Amino acid sequence: MTDINVLSATNIVIFGATGDLAKRKLFPAFYNLFIDGRMPENFNIIALGRSDHNDEYFRNYIKVNLEAFSRKNVTPEHWEAFQSHITYFQHQLDEENSYKNLNRKLLEFDSGFGVRGNRLFYLSIGPNFISTISNHIKNASLASEPDKDRIIIEKPFGYNKQSAIELNQLLSETFEEKQIYRIDHYLGKETVQNILAFRFGNSIFEPLWNHRHIESVQITVAEEVGVETRGSFYEQTGALRDMVQNHLLQILCMVAMEAPASLESDEIRDRKVDVLKSIRRIPADKVDHYAVRGQYGKGIINGVETKAYREEDGVDPDSNTETFVAAKFYIDNERWQNVPFYVRTGKKMKEKQSYISIQFKPLPHSTFSDTNPLSANRLIINIQPLMDIRLQFMTKKQGLSMALRPVEMIFDYFACKEDTPEVYETLLQDALEGDLTLFMRSDQVEEAWDVVTTIQEDWANKKAIFPNYEAGSWGPKESFDLVERQGHNWL
Amino acid sequence: MTDINVLSATNIVIFGATGDLAKRKLFPAFYNLFIDGRMPENFNIIALGRSDHNDEYFRNYIKVNLEAFSRKNVTPEHWEAFQSHITYFQHQLDEENSYKNLNRKLLEFDSGFGVRGNRLFYLSIGPNFISTISNHIKNASLASEPDKDRIIIEKPFGYNKQSAIELNQLLSETFEEKQIYRIDHYLGKETVQNILAFRFGNSIFEPLWNHRHIESVQITVAEEVGVETRGSFYEQTGALRDMVQNHLLQILCMVAMEAPASLESDEIRDRKVDVLKSIRRIPADKVDHYAVRGQYGKGIINGVETKAYREEDGVDPDSNTETFVAAKFYIDNERWQNVPFYVRTGKKMKEKQSYISIQFKPLPHSTFSDTNPLSANRLIINIQPLMDIRLQFMTKKQGLSMALRPVEMIFDYFACKEDTPEVYETLLQDALEGDLTLFMRSDQVEEAWDVVTTIQEDWANKKAIFPNYEAGSWGPKESFDLVERQGHNWL
Repeated sequence: MTDINVLSATNIVIFGATGDLAKRKLFPAFYNLFIDGRMPENFNIIALGRSDHNDEYFRNYIKVNLEAFSRKNVTPEHWEAFQSHITYFQHQLDEENSYKNLNRKLLEFDSGFGVRGNRLFYLSIGPNFISTISNHIKNASLASEPDKDRIIIEKPFGYNKQSAIELNQLLSETFEEKQIYRIDHYLGKETVQNILAFRFGNSIFEPLWNHRHIESVQITVAEEVGVETRGSFYEQTGALRDMVQNHLLQILCMVAMEAPASLESDEIRDRKVDVLKSIRRIPADKVDHYAVRGQYGKGIINGVETKAYREEDGVDPDSNTETFVAAKFYIDNERWQNVPFYVRTGKKMKEKQSYISIQFKPLPHSTFSDTNPLSANRLIINIQPLMDIRLQFMTKKQGLSMALRPVEMIFDYFACKEDTPEVYETLLQDALEGDLTLFMRSDQVEEAWDVVTTIQEDWANKKAIFPNYEAGSWGPKESFDLVERQGHNWL
Repeated sequence: MTDINVLSATNIVIFGATGDLAKRKLFPAFYNLFIDGRMPENFNIIALGRSDHNDEYFRNYIKVNLEAFSRKNVTPEHWEAFQSHITYFQHQLDEENSYKNLNRKLLEFDSGFGVRGNRLFYLSIGPNFISTISNHIKNASLASEPDKDRIIIEKPFGYNKQSAIELNQLLSETFEEKQIYRIDHYLGKETVQNILAFRFGNSIFEPLWNHRHIESVQITVAEEVGVETRGSFYEQTGALRDMVQNHLLQILCMVAMEAPASLESDEIRDRKVDVLKSIRRIPADKVDHYAVRGQYGKGIINGVETKAYREEDGVDPDSNTETFVAAKFYIDNERWQNVPFYVRTGKKMKEKQSYISIQFKPLPHSTFSDTNPLSANRLIINIQPLMDIRLQFMTKKQGLSMALRPVEMIFDYFACKEDTPEVYETLLQDALEGDLTLFMRSDQVEEAWDVVTTIQEDWANKKAIFPNYEAGSWGPKESFDLVERQGHNWL
């Protein structure tokens, strides 16, 4: 988190460098960091792929993609300087020899640096290759320096608690925990990072931030898109694994956590784990009371007819996979006793909209109540596509009587037109610097799986009556019932 | 405070109807209330003046002034309907006969109503006539029905505590307290009335509204104008009497008062008197420590040279009258222990600006403190000319490091473009309805004088070294010292 560039020479190795994530996110992120002077003075990006390409071909492929996906313009001077750092390297994931060759390449670059450089291995590949790659890295001694070598892994981290424990166990044979950077890209969003600044950089919110003043909390991550081309992947995943276990629970942790004493990454991650541990586990026989699943049927979004999930490519016509989840969690600690945390996520919702809503308790006694029903205060933190903070409060209606009306005070995060980094710039910069704060520690991952275990098991064992919501709606009726039976409402 | 017009027939008697206040404020207010259907169905405005005018002449004079000063346009239809309610009546303030004639006129109008109408006497005249008029009203039995008859009095209410007690005593010989409407026009401002709605219509501010969370409170009413044509009046008054004893202390009361159980006028006025009683009295030998006076010298405002107070018409070239006051008050109750309330007012200030600023305490421990100095939260309620509420808080600076910066959340009171009544519309409407909430009760006036008594006496007895601030500045250096020696700052 330094502003001055004092980064050690680094070799960045990308597994799956010809894939979608690399071209859309990783190379653009490195390129923008490079322009901003935030890459190490000495670095190489070693792009691994199965095919036989030369550097020129691959660099040109990257250039074309940068022109499509980079935040900043691709100028000849910047490109000229940047491209010389890219090397394409043919590589077979499961062949020992490939790793030996990679090792030689790395040593060669190290001698160019004049020091043993840091190594950053980015696994931009499916989860079933993690074990293979990890073992080969170990056997070829590619990541033998715990203070210099790091591995970045994309979600999903397992598919339930047991598999996550096994994956963590496996990684620990090659890497120390401090070398492992598990990405949850939601944590890289400015509006999500700002939750910490907002809560702990101000003296006026924390006194209100507890069960004495807060009635309920809502976290919604609604997507307008469906599963698109990812049908067969999604069939194995579903919304609970894809969104709730990671992104939504991580946001919940940031809303609910105690104040960290410092910004040390383990201090912050400890406070988050505390929350996960305190979330009341849903009893196996009460899942229906706490959680609702849904799957979209046909519908209309923005005036266009759209097909049902079961009609998507790669999807079982009788699929039991959920594309929508709403759930209610309680946090059993002093601060949050009896405050429901409602989370909700779904595909093919009416609108793309991610937000946190803090609903404050109503006034205990209203001076004004006779004539004016008052709305209770609400704080809304919009994550995307709106990025703002809104405080809803009552004010006097202009005019000759003491009538009140609800109004909003708004802070627009982007009104100040600062240059805003992409999520992957933030995360890669942190990984280059060795800052683990925004990455998931093994115990975070395992506790988060533990939170959803009974829901997973219940849903796996029971056939759902799907589809149960129209594409372009806000999800099944049961999701509304979940909040309304406690007198609450989705925003 | 009803929205439906159920007002009794009323005769409105204006003493000083040819004066400045009547033409600029009172007639425009009545006219606008009339257009809005907020005047009683039956009413007369009896305009009293010394000169011999006929109705036609006077009505035309009012029409010309409405065209200059009315908020809403003067249309032929509205004017035609309105003007028939106006009667000019020649009157000598000190002649018994004049009151007898007035009585006959009122009875005549009553018989037109078919009932004994309400009577509203508006004293739009200098304070030295109050006693004469009040006695004559009594002798002529003009205000003999306490439930129907009311008197409205403009400030100043006395010039110190003793004279205020005497004035109240005198009025009480003719009127019951509930008949007496002492105007403090600041209380009619939408932004001032909104303080009650803001504080007590929301659940999130009151928990913060005390010495545990608030560091200091500032109230500034700065004027850009000087004394203009009112030099000889101002020589007898000064800023402490003209502004602090009434407007600033009234605003302070609205910021500091406990929650009223209801909107009953005496309930609210009781809570305000509680505050005035709790204000720590400044010891006679410590006035310099708590209060600062100033008088403007020459200076430049908006690029134009402007003269010193002592050079103004009607002002003593060696005048000891203050045109600026800054003072620090403490409120000795549970809520406000040790929280300084700084008030400040002055003429020929750099800008016209009235606001309340609530400075919250800094964070007890900052997670971020190593690298980022944090600004403590501040809530600013702008009264005029800006009319908004601003909450200053810290947020994450966009970018790759966890750096914080102060930002503002703004609610603009007039962004919603509602029709906003003038202050005198609000106050006259309340007086017609018999709602005393926004008017000063005798004990409020007397307690407010008591608060400033030691300052008055000290300043009267000591010759000041004037002028001590330049026109177009923010007042004398001692005003800054007053707040800075406790580590605070004027906004």
